[in-house]
Amino acid sequence: MSAAARSGVLASVGAFSAPKRVLMGPGPSDVHPRVLAAMAQNTIGHLDPEFVRLMDEIKLLLRATFRTENDLTFAISAPGSIGMETSVINLVEPGDTIIICVNGVFGGRMVSMAERAGAKVVKVATPWGRAVDLEGVEAALKANPGTRVVAFVQAETSTGALSDAKALSALAHQYGALSLCDAVTSLAGVPLEVDAWGIDAVYSATQKCLSAPPGLSPVSYSSRAVERVKARKTPVVSWFQDLALVMSYWGSGGNSTARRTYHHTAPVNALFGLHESLLILHEEGLEASWARHARVHKQLADGLEALGFRYVVPEGERLPQLNSVWIPEGIDDAAGRGRLLNEFGVEIGGGLGDFAGKVWRIGLMGQSCSEQHVERVLNALAAISGRSRVATATLETV
Amino acid sequence: MSAAARSGVLASVGAFSAPKRVLMGPGPSDVHPRVLAAMAQNTIGHLDPEFVRLMDEIKLLLRATFRTENDLTFAISAPGSIGMETSVINLVEPGDTIIICVNGVFGGRMVSMAERAGAKVVKVATPWGRAVDLEGVEAALKANPGTRVVAFVQAETSTGALSDAKALSALAHQYGALSLCDAVTSLAGVPLEVDAWGIDAVYSATQKCLSAPPGLSPVSYSSRAVERVKARKTPVVSWFQDLALVMSYWGSGGNSTARRTYHHTAPVNALFGLHESLLILHEEGLEASWARHARVHKQLADGLEALGFRYVVPEGERLPQLNSVWIPEGIDDAAGRGRLLNEFGVEIGGGLGDFAGKVWRIGLMGQSCSEQHVERVLNALAAISGRSRVATATLETV
Repeated sequence: MSAAARSGVLASVGAFSAPKRVLMGPGPSDVHPRVLAAMAQNTIGHLDPEFVRLMDEIKLLLRATFRTENDLTFAISAPGSIGMETSVINLVEPGDTIIICVNGVFGGRMVSMAERAGAKVVKVATPWGRAVDLEGVEAALKANPGTRVVAFVQAETSTGALSDAKALSALAHQYGALSLCDAVTSLAGVPLEVDAWGIDAVYSATQKCLSAPPGLSPVSYSSRAVERVKARKTPVVSWFQDLALVMSYWGSGGNSTARRTYHHTAPVNALFGLHESLLILHEEGLEASWARHARVHKQLADGLEALGFRYVVPEGERLPQLNSVWIPEGIDDAAGRGRLLNEFGVEIGGGLGDFAGKVWRIGLMGQSCSEQHVERVLNALAAISGRSRVATATLETV
Repeated sequence: MSAAARSGVLASVGAFSAPKRVLMGPGPSDVHPRVLAAMAQNTIGHLDPEFVRLMDEIKLLLRATFRTENDLTFAISAPGSIGMETSVINLVEPGDTIIICVNGVFGGRMVSMAERAGAKVVKVATPWGRAVDLEGVEAALKANPGTRVVAFVQAETSTGALSDAKALSALAHQYGALSLCDAVTSLAGVPLEVDAWGIDAVYSATQKCLSAPPGLSPVSYSSRAVERVKARKTPVVSWFQDLALVMSYWGSGGNSTARRTYHHTAPVNALFGLHESLLILHEEGLEASWARHARVHKQLADGLEALGFRYVVPEGERLPQLNSVWIPEGIDDAAGRGRLLNEFGVEIGGGLGDFAGKVWRIGLMGQSCSEQHVERVLNALAAISGRSRVATATLETV
């Protein structure tokens, strides 16, 4: 073709055809066809009155999902890591003390962000695979009067541990600090009550239990958090992440729809998708979604244990939507996951950081949280680990 | 329905149906149905081998688009503003001198970013609507020995002025500085030769002449820029935007495909779309795309002048893909644009900053750059400004 001749790069690149996968890793999770169809609608302008209406509806749906009346509730136009960084760097100024609970990769990431923003970071470390140690946090608060923020990860995606967000938020307030909650993997998968628990800042991501494609970070900030941002004496280190600028764009902070200020160009089609995924969630009902994650998790846990897998996290601290198990003796990490993907189309996650090569992470998030998904992954795991599911199950149930 | 009863928010929110628009503002531009279909493919994992292959192909396609062999060429997982901020804050450390050319909103935005990162900013201001003043830049370089970076906007989206990126990059090098080029609106619309012109850092966005939805920022960095990043004595202020971390994820900086390191979750479906939009561009051919933008612009300019519109930017400094005209006497900005949108489905842009209420911006970008688009917008403008195109055209051509 003459077109191909004009541009040599086409000789080696053709249309991309996405393989069919069953997404049971730490995210992204399977996306509902309705969400994919919503995203494929023609792009409209990011200041179009119809798009502004969509943004307003997304705020409404996100408030219902976070269980909050917070005015400043919206979706940041970037992945969850930006939601994390935006939340951290807006709430601290150089020299401010922030207590960060570290029980996995993502707490550690917050530390790096806060340090870059000039904060004094006090780390409260809990062993990987365990919920955050409340006594350690209280001791840190006592030892560091004037602490401005207590930050924690409700659902540690790197380990599968669920921490007590309600108690951590209460502790922060008891000592005059704001609470900052990572809800990337928790939102819609386990109970999260932003207002009832008094959480001041919370961020999530779309590709976990909301089952939209990755790329957006839903966030919500209390009026206390907004006051903190407005009272800053120093500018936030990042222009893109300065909430004082972003809130004018999303029509918060007293701005009416008519007075929205251009900040950046929102990812229009991604927001079409998020809107639809939130509709699907609320058609089921948020509490029904929590219950489904708990129920299907039980089914998976029984099956995994029957196959001889051992959980990393003790019972009672486990996330239903992220199941970390030790890789059995004699199975190679990469080869095992490769067989799951290539022979069964099933994606699960490897370990991160200290858990690399030792742990597999099996996700049951949003649309990927169903009995069929459990059957699929158990059968695939049985096959690659040379165990028979039927025999084992029979032994257990006799 | 029981579902609706379970969740009160659904009473006021239903499925979103995007209205059909003709996008002729400053971006987003019309997106080809092939790109929308590519984005609607099922989501796959961001570490899936097939996705890694897609990322490699995107790097190849972007290199051909930027006209560079730069290893570190990829798409940042966020809008163009993050591409700008990432480029600025990685190349300066606190106390470093950066010269920033300001001839519109976007140069001014870079100033704010560089100041937040602790740089010493020297502004070279040129009146809005004009190309950057080369003599002013040389004078600033002479007055500020040791300047580390010269930053400029090749295509000022707020005014429609095209600056001489080749000459500006050469000036920077002559005085030992790196060159940093904003190519948000220029890429694929006007010639840009990253290697031949020696541009050290360049960023763009997907929703302009690439005609993909907004949300990604293609970037490319020379080996000189990468060395600068590696030699930093202080950490970049933002974790998300730290190129040293991001480059391991995109497999640059000596990393083979097999050793990619998880950094964040890439917006998988958005990258499906970008890949397809780049294929469409290279099927036409990059130079053919530049020629089309020039040709269709001429047609629009003739039509606008025949209707009595006056251009903001003098001939010879005009961007073909972004046409700024003064709003005629007697036409209200918001009401006029509202009529274009509601009666003709045509979106054009209002003025930003100093130009708010005074200027209209008419885009001819990517898929929105066609003779049919020109006809559509000229007919709509004639109707709302009470002028007859035929009569005016006749007068002009007699």
